[in-house]
Amino acid sequence: MKALDELVGLLTRLPGIGRKSALRVAYYLLKADDSFAESLAERIRGLKGSVKFCSICGSYTESDPCPVCSSEARERGLICAVEQPQDVVTIEASREYHGLYHVLGGLISPLDGVGPDDLRIRELVARVSGGRPGEAPVTEVVVATNPTVEGDTTALYLKRLLEPSGVAVTRLATGIPVGGDLEYADRLTLARSFRGRTRL
Amino acid sequence: MKALDELVGLLTRLPGIGRKSALRVAYYLLKADDSFAESLAERIRGLKGSVKFCSICGSYTESDPCPVCSSEARERGLICAVEQPQDVVTIEASREYHGLYHVLGGLISPLDGVGPDDLRIRELVARVSGGRPGEAPVTEVVVATNPTVEGDTTALYLKRLLEPSGVAVTRLATGIPVGGDLEYADRLTLARSFRGRTRL
Repeated sequence: MKALDELVGLLTRLPGIGRKSALRVAYYLLKADDSFAESLAERIRGLKGSVKFCSICGSYTESDPCPVCSSEARERGLICAVEQPQDVVTIEASREYHGLYHVLGGLISPLDGVGPDDLRIRELVARVSGGRPGEAPVTEVVVATNPTVEGDTTALYLKRLLEPSGVAVTRLATGIPVGGDLEYADRLTLARSFRGRTRL
Repeated sequence: MKALDELVGLLTRLPGIGRKSALRVAYYLLKADDSFAESLAERIRGLKGSVKFCSICGSYTESDPCPVCSSEARERGLICAVEQPQDVVTIEASREYHGLYHVLGGLISPLDGVGPDDLRIRELVARVSGGRPGEAPVTEVVVATNPTVEGDTTALYLKRLLEPSGVAVTRLATGIPVGGDLEYADRLTLARSFRGRTRL
């Protein structure tokens, strides 16, 4: 069936959706009432129109600047640097962080030909050094990149770049996840968790 | 973000898609080019309009009768009874079966208040007993319901109903799946595979 096959073909291009899941979704849509398919199609079509990038931090937002950047309740001397816009949503969901954000738009990766100039690092330096008048100065940049080679490289680069201007550059702790098991931790994670051990 | 949250809310209603997968899909849509979201929305909206039920067998089709029901290349004396339309697609994909189909539209389940009259059983009886003039008579009905309580009940009901009219009623074999392991087979499957053992 052409209509079904075409939909399945497009659905399998979405992340995490294989052919079987795509078929199940298509069958579900066939069974569901028309209004559901109608509103789903409407939302998919409208998404990119209503979601933009914040001109300050670079995260997804419907209003510019984004609610975080324009909030007076956030710690404005603290900036968390993340790889991509969705990382902001993930961190916000933890309700653990109350500072501002800066989306780098990727990680330094010489193998993939991505250098510092391809990322929003210049914008971060500008925010750190030349705060707007009346704005509290930035005292700390928390680098929240993933603990991978590229994430480590980017964090180190930011440290060398920003520390001379007197700002503290910190990194999220790496170690055994809560509820995890020593037995299943890989060697590198274990090594890092030893190096980062804390006093009880 | 309202636009994102609304889309994620609708996506999580789809089968096999939790909140995390829905978010990944939404982010993918934000990154993908406009034409992708556009065609996906178009296909979702158009699906129900172009896919109907075959008036003979009850499976999904774009033309009525469906390609299988109108094909002269199929064994027209053989009907495979299945629970739902997607089962036809699954069986067709195996390329093992060359007869016709009949979608029951569910299984007999007294607990859920589903009786024989709620299913397309009357239509199956009509096809088996009163073939169209010039049409080959139906000689066998293969019941391809799942090996569950409801599937077994429905198969037994069809056997009692159809056998008096001289048609053979058969059932798909139950047993250890190909590549499976005795060690992981449950007791019931093992018992059934003993009962259904075949001569080498």
